[in-house]
Amino acid sequence: MSHKVAVLGASGYTGAELVRLIATHPGMEIAALTGERKAGMRMAEVFPHLATLDLPVLSRIEEVDLNGIDLVFCALPHATSQAVIADLPRALRIVDLSADFRLRDPADYETWYGKPHAAPELQREAVYGLTEFYRDEIRAARLVAGTGCNAAAGQYAIRPLLEAGVIDPERIILDLKAGVSGAGRALKENLLHAELSEGTHPYAAGGTHRHLGEFDQEFSAIAGRPVRVQFTPHLSPMNRGILVTAYVEGDAQAVHAAISRRYDHETFLHVLPFGALPSTRHVRGSNFVHIGVVGDRMPGRAVVVVAIDNLTKGSSGQAIQNANLMLGERETEGLMLAPVFP
Amino acid sequence: MSHKVAVLGASGYTGAELVRLIATHPGMEIAALTGERKAGMRMAEVFPHLATLDLPVLSRIEEVDLNGIDLVFCALPHATSQAVIADLPRALRIVDLSADFRLRDPADYETWYGKPHAAPELQREAVYGLTEFYRDEIRAARLVAGTGCNAAAGQYAIRPLLEAGVIDPERIILDLKAGVSGAGRALKENLLHAELSEGTHPYAAGGTHRHLGEFDQEFSAIAGRPVRVQFTPHLSPMNRGILVTAYVEGDAQAVHAAISRRYDHETFLHVLPFGALPSTRHVRGSNFVHIGVVGDRMPGRAVVVVAIDNLTKGSSGQAIQNANLMLGERETEGLMLAPVFP
Amino acid sequence: MSHKVAVLGASGYTGAELVRLIATHPGMEIAALTGERKAGMRMAEVFPHLATLDLPVLSRIEEVDLNGIDLVFCALPHATSQAVIADLPRALRIVDLSADFRLRDPADYETWYGKPHAAPELQREAVYGLTEFYRDEIRAARLVAGTGCNAAAGQYAIRPLLEAGVIDPERIILDLKAGVSGAGRALKENLLHAELSEGTHPYAAGGTHRHLGEFDQEFSAIAGRPVRVQFTPHLSPMNRGILVTAYVEGDAQAVHAAISRRYDHETFLHVLPFGALPSTRHVRGSNFVHIGVVGDRMPGRAVVVVAIDNLTKGSSGQAIQNANLMLGERETEGLMLAPVFP
Amino acid sequence: MSHKVAVLGASGYTGAELVRLIATHPGMEIAALTGERKAGMRMAEVFPHLATLDLPVLSRIEEVDLNGIDLVFCALPHATSQAVIADLPRALRIVDLSADFRLRDPADYETWYGKPHAAPELQREAVYGLTEFYRDEIRAARLVAGTGCNAAAGQYAIRPLLEAGVIDPERIILDLKAGVSGAGRALKENLLHAELSEGTHPYAAGGTHRHLGEFDQEFSAIAGRPVRVQFTPHLSPMNRGILVTAYVEGDAQAVHAAISRRYDHETFLHVLPFGALPSTRHVRGSNFVHIGVVGDRMPGRAVVVVAIDNLTKGSSGQAIQNANLMLGERETEGLMLAPVFP
Repeated sequence: MSHKVAVLGASGYTGAELVRLIATHPGMEIAALTGERKAGMRMAEVFPHLATLDLPVLSRIEEVDLNGIDLVFCALPHATSQAVIADLPRALRIVDLSADFRLRDPADYETWYGKPHAAPELQREAVYGLTEFYRDEIRAARLVAGTGCNAAAGQYAIRPLLEAGVIDPERIILDLKAGVSGAGRALKENLLHAELSEGTHPYAAGGTHRHLGEFDQEFSAIAGRPVRVQFTPHLSPMNRGILVTAYVEGDAQAVHAAISRRYDHETFLHVLPFGALPSTRHVRGSNFVHIGVVGDRMPGRAVVVVAIDNLTKGSSGQAIQNANLMLGERETEGLMLAPVFP
Repeated sequence: MSHKVAVLGASGYTGAELVRLIATHPGMEIAALTGERKAGMRMAEVFPHLATLDLPVLSRIEEVDLNGIDLVFCALPHATSQAVIADLPRALRIVDLSADFRLRDPADYETWYGKPHAAPELQREAVYGLTEFYRDEIRAARLVAGTGCNAAAGQYAIRPLLEAGVIDPERIILDLKAGVSGAGRALKENLLHAELSEGTHPYAAGGTHRHLGEFDQEFSAIAGRPVRVQFTPHLSPMNRGILVTAYVEGDAQAVHAAISRRYDHETFLHVLPFGALPSTRHVRGSNFVHIGVVGDRMPGRAVVVVAIDNLTKGSSGQAIQNANLMLGERETEGLMLAPVFP
Repeated sequence: MSHKVAVLGASGYTGAELVRLIATHPGMEIAALTGERKAGMRMAEVFPHLATLDLPVLSRIEEVDLNGIDLVFCALPHATSQAVIADLPRALRIVDLSADFRLRDPADYETWYGKPHAAPELQREAVYGLTEFYRDEIRAARLVAGTGCNAAAGQYAIRPLLEAGVIDPERIILDLKAGVSGAGRALKENLLHAELSEGTHPYAAGGTHRHLGEFDQEFSAIAGRPVRVQFTPHLSPMNRGILVTAYVEGDAQAVHAAISRRYDHETFLHVLPFGALPSTRHVRGSNFVHIGVVGDRMPGRAVVVVAIDNLTKGSSGQAIQNANLMLGERETEGLMLAPVFP
Repeated sequence: MSHKVAVLGASGYTGAELVRLIATHPGMEIAALTGERKAGMRMAEVFPHLATLDLPVLSRIEEVDLNGIDLVFCALPHATSQAVIADLPRALRIVDLSADFRLRDPADYETWYGKPHAAPELQREAVYGLTEFYRDEIRAARLVAGTGCNAAAGQYAIRPLLEAGVIDPERIILDLKAGVSGAGRALKENLLHAELSEGTHPYAAGGTHRHLGEFDQEFSAIAGRPVRVQFTPHLSPMNRGILVTAYVEGDAQAVHAAISRRYDHETFLHVLPFGALPSTRHVRGSNFVHIGVVGDRMPGRAVVVVAIDNLTKGSSGQAIQNANLMLGERETEGLMLAPVFP
């Protein structure tokens, strides 16, 4: 039997990616799609690539009949999400793709997002959605907070190393190269093709990127003491993909061993042989993660490289993986699509 | 029950695309993969994006145990294909993706490919693989010849118009913009990123492109007299996609009506409302075709625009669609993947 | 002695391209730059690639001291331009890059731009800026109207053929592939990198593109009777470049001969040997035009292909070429920069 | 009076870039071009973007008449260069763009290039071509060794900091994003458009990239003791450009001050205000370098970001800058071309 789901905020890239993935998911069926400014439009007008799917017309959130809906994906903008979710019936399962419920501590939220959280009780309730590390909690959760896409990529590199204690937590540098779809469909000058193609640049450098809040929260919890990492994201002239190059101090073979061991039984996390390095091209359009480890000529230093698709494993694929757990579906259902290359 | 298939020539892009699509096809299972120069290698080495699939090691063709295999996909180079297929057991069903069996007339083959056909009896037997127009023959066929990717795109624009008699067959111009993956994985200077990105150019202009042989054969058969079209392909700096802009003489509304009527019940062929125009982005990675028609300010002239993914509907998706028919599967099985955008 | 020039509207791509070219022009010096919404900003903030030039701060038009300025480049939006130019002192020479003065007939202007012209007397005075065809008039002009970039590319293909009478004026089709910078720096969803890269699509098809007004005006004047062409522009995923593929009816050798003869002494117009075809990559960043001609297998049909850089020869390079003539500089001064490849 | 120069190895990208730059250099004139495998061809055939220049036909090196030639640019492959240069007349000035003379110590050369140097006496004589740091030696030199393009970018970030003693030399990490033209015009599968576009990946990680030899030599010389850096290059889907993100330990303001002070009078080295960060787009096609510094939230850590065009400032522009010094031209002659954006 198929579960009925709604996608709130279906007119952005993560909304469209949810629809793309659900299109061939045997256990989910889209009962409602919303888009405030595009209410009344067909998805074919908003996203012509979805024109051949049989989809509900976009509506306003208040117009959605929630009866019979099993789960709601919330792909709304940050801050909007917390207000909308607070009004949803308690019986509904919710996977939120915004930043609103990623940080557990209200003070942290205010630090990184600049104002107090509007629904602190929900913030407490929400489970952090990095599936491979919160599987049991997610299975039992009513509200799951999808991770930041950059935050997901960085954590796949670092978590097993902190857990295994094989690196120095004081010296972690994450240099990240992100595709442009991570910035969304917003009309910003620096996202125009003419501005962005054929070049690369850093942004939000110097410890200012909001996904640092997630790194701080998660890494500190693992290490049992405050851990701060350096993190510099760069925009790369590609539509999809995140590559994290993580510089760590520790024995490279031990680093590789810790990662390999930790991900050994994970369907979506593919650890390459020692010395081999991944490419974002090879996970494009898929829920898979490729991870490589290489040692430096200087003993005691290692580089971990993680490649994900920001829209899939970094957000909408992760969301469906979590929804599968919440609905009692097989965790990988609908997500085994092979990467699209070239 | 799953059908066992083999992919001969799995180290090129169309081979990889077959593997990608079969990965989530519930009725097919890959029993063998071959690649002459890469025999002994794992697909993960040749195409790292397929590393998370459980696949046979690449072997040489003569090493493949054909017992129990239901169908063979032949993604070998032109000319090689005819020699290999001639040696395969008569009991095997075959979908060939090369150019070897597209032309029915041995003289035409020699004209366009520069030497006599090595297996003329197979050439006679082969069915032309443009599914929507040869469905019954394909269902009954032992050997199906996949169409040229450009030839497929052009025919989706023109065939219904010749069938309906709504255009002047003397005045058909096909201006085509093709993504680079259509040129394959060959090491050619003009396919390097630095040579090809950030620019566009025509090639094989002036009536010299081999896919003209297919246009001549098919269009003449429909019209009942020799039809010759003008055809200029251009290389566009994108990996996937073919856009055909077809200039025809006839009433634009009649052109739109003929196309709409003809494709009304076709799952993969999506005709846009009159005046709307397609984009290759919106079919990327999928088996869908988007088709638009617009009239000119000069009465009696119309433009038909067709967008396909050259690797999917243009070759490997088409191949699987045909294989589905040959194996008694549902025609759309494994092919309903939504396009990947952005 | 260096001529003082002002660039009105320096915050768009054609404005920036003017500044780039004037930077190494020995006979021009930038005395003023304007940008209404960015007044008070330095060019380094608006266009960081110009940060190493010593440039005036952006001001409002009314703040510019026009004393001592020899020539004004107007890179303002359409419609704004006619109002601004009407207020400039009669002693100033002006090269306008907008569409406002391209059409000589007020009725044509109203047809294509949807409202009456606000300065019809200036419209009459303006000289059409396709340098190689209006050289003497430009030299003597006070106000020169830069051509549309698409219009320039198409005319380089067709004008010599109409002049020489070697093609049928009833059957001219221009299929154009344009880089994205031609659409300017406007915040439009379809110009985002994620929307535009990795795909191609037509726009303004069916005889609706405004540059048709220029084709109609110019081609009819040459032929001595109304000439209408078919014209379909496509957006290609590249920043710079226009490729026109012109389908004409006439003897291909005669077509090549007419073009070769006409452009024989033109520094910027490079005609390739018969059968060779150009690429936009090979004129990138330069004022050069590459032109190729090929015959079809059907006698009496030819294809002419023209490649230009839309920002250089298609607008700002052309503007400087015209300004050189107006100021008594050598026509090629500052414009001999070799194309940038790769 | 114009100096006569020859370009040996003009059929690669750095050769073509030399020709592009010399085309508008008032003090240089190309007397000979060589290309072993393309001898007898015109440059227009090898590089159609240079078709409008009046250039000598490509010849073999032994066919070049060196009489009257003032300076030779050697853009030959590594290892070939040392053999060719050893045979050139002692009276000739030479700028070598290969790796052959970058390392001063024969043992270092053998370590990084895997075999003994064939011309160790020339190796001793050669001056390292990082203009801003070896200006006087270059002015007096007969043989100048162009730096590695990655090595140049990294040194612009780090040298002033080691000189000023404001960072910890034990903890320097250089994460580099390089455009594809740096890999040359070689026919390699991973350089194909379909393989490389729309994705990013690291290569030569783990302290194996040969440009580390240059970093070791130069940084150790400045620091007066062995300095080893970590260095991970990544291929970015763009044709031109190198972005180095350098992670250093030291006070960020002191880092910015040291860089600003050191480059204050350098025409080509543009230091951004503290906190501002550069983009490769803004130096494309030019000899300019943009440099930014930002502090981290963790005191005592800073990030320095350097953007250059690998073909211009990273190799051929640098070569001409050095040649200008050697020939007594103004150092900036022919190199003031503004960057090409978009």
